[in-house]
Amino acid sequence: MAESTREGTDSLFEAIYTQRAIRRWRSDPVPDDLLWRALEAATKAPSGSNTQPWRWVVVRDPATRRAVSEALSAHLASDEGMRSYFERGVQSEDRSQRLMLTGALEIARDLARAPVLIVPCVYGGSRADNLLAGSSIYPAVQNLLLAARGLGLGTVLTTFQARIEPTVRELLRLPADARPVALIPLGFPDANFGPTRRKPVEEVVYWDSWGSTRSR
Amino acid sequence: MAESTREGTDSLFEAIYTQRAIRRWRSDPVPDDLLWRALEAATKAPSGSNTQPWRWVVVRDPATRRAVSEALSAHLASDEGMRSYFERGVQSEDRSQRLMLTGALEIARDLARAPVLIVPCVYGGSRADNLLAGSSIYPAVQNLLLAARGLGLGTVLTTFQARIEPTVRELLRLPADARPVALIPLGFPDANFGPTRRKPVEEVVYWDSWGSTRSR
Repeated sequence: MAESTREGTDSLFEAIYTQRAIRRWRSDPVPDDLLWRALEAATKAPSGSNTQPWRWVVVRDPATRRAVSEALSAHLASDEGMRSYFERGVQSEDRSQRLMLTGALEIARDLARAPVLIVPCVYGGSRADNLLAGSSIYPAVQNLLLAARGLGLGTVLTTFQARIEPTVRELLRLPADARPVALIPLGFPDANFGPTRRKPVEEVVYWDSWGSTRSR
Repeated sequence: MAESTREGTDSLFEAIYTQRAIRRWRSDPVPDDLLWRALEAATKAPSGSNTQPWRWVVVRDPATRRAVSEALSAHLASDEGMRSYFERGVQSEDRSQRLMLTGALEIARDLARAPVLIVPCVYGGSRADNLLAGSSIYPAVQNLLLAARGLGLGTVLTTFQARIEPTVRELLRLPADARPVALIPLGFPDANFGPTRRKPVEEVVYWDSWGSTRSR
């Protein structure tokens, strides 16, 4: 597969295989045109009965980004469960897990390093709060991440907004019937895109019934 | 953007812009190699703490596909809510909505027209049944749909499995701790890929705070 790079690509499979979590960004602003292209790509995803139950709040204002970042960082410092999760993680014996959690901790401490934060919200569709309801929003989120990768922009999918939802609601002036579903920092990467670590596909695919694996 | 076609593409943006719901398939079998490629692409998606909490059940056995199809079709005939939803829909004044729901009704009546059914399951991760839990499975589902599009395979994302979950569990021998999250027919399309109908992106993107739109 493709080598590590910070460049964009229009190859579908290259984008899919190298869209890894990026947690360091250059400070360069992101041109409007690239944001529009990534966001429009997001909206091309399927949703139940094509309801498109989404709004996308793009946060570039430095004061707002700083306020979101400070709220998350304060939460991290005070929440015992979240702190111990990260503390165990950064001591993990699994190097890849350790690196991932170290990066997650850093970004939780300093979100505002990213020049753009994107907060997708479910809005105007069903109010269901169950797993299946995610089928009408996260495909669009994934389109956003892939399109950003294609445009040479780095992102990381987080649900940190859930940790500081009252603050996010207030800062972004979300109405009661909008539900923020992710908090996605975005910018030109100061790290490489590249292959991701995943279980072999043969182990997670079953043929005709549960547990029935085959070799490729 | 690209013209309608039934061919594959390795263009990321072409795949995103033309990945529309396909509900008619040719009867040709789908080569294993294409299934592996689409499924491996699915597994490259992000998930919370990289837990990859998924299994993918690929159903090709004709008797199993027929049994799933018959269960759904029987449910459709007996469930008042589902029937009236479709009946109202196929009389909608919005042509695009009408066509979409007519297609959905046809596929609900005869799922087994597709040579392959894919049932992604959440397994081995958090047991949370809330909207945010979808962030660890539906990005992978969207990778599957896009990769299939890239390979010239047509799919439609449905959650019909929820309507007949006991039957699906029994036929596919799902364990209690696996949760089927979608039912995705797949095959070589007997319809064109092509542009999808979506709201203009300017209407669904807000800048810095809710309701603050901008022109592109």
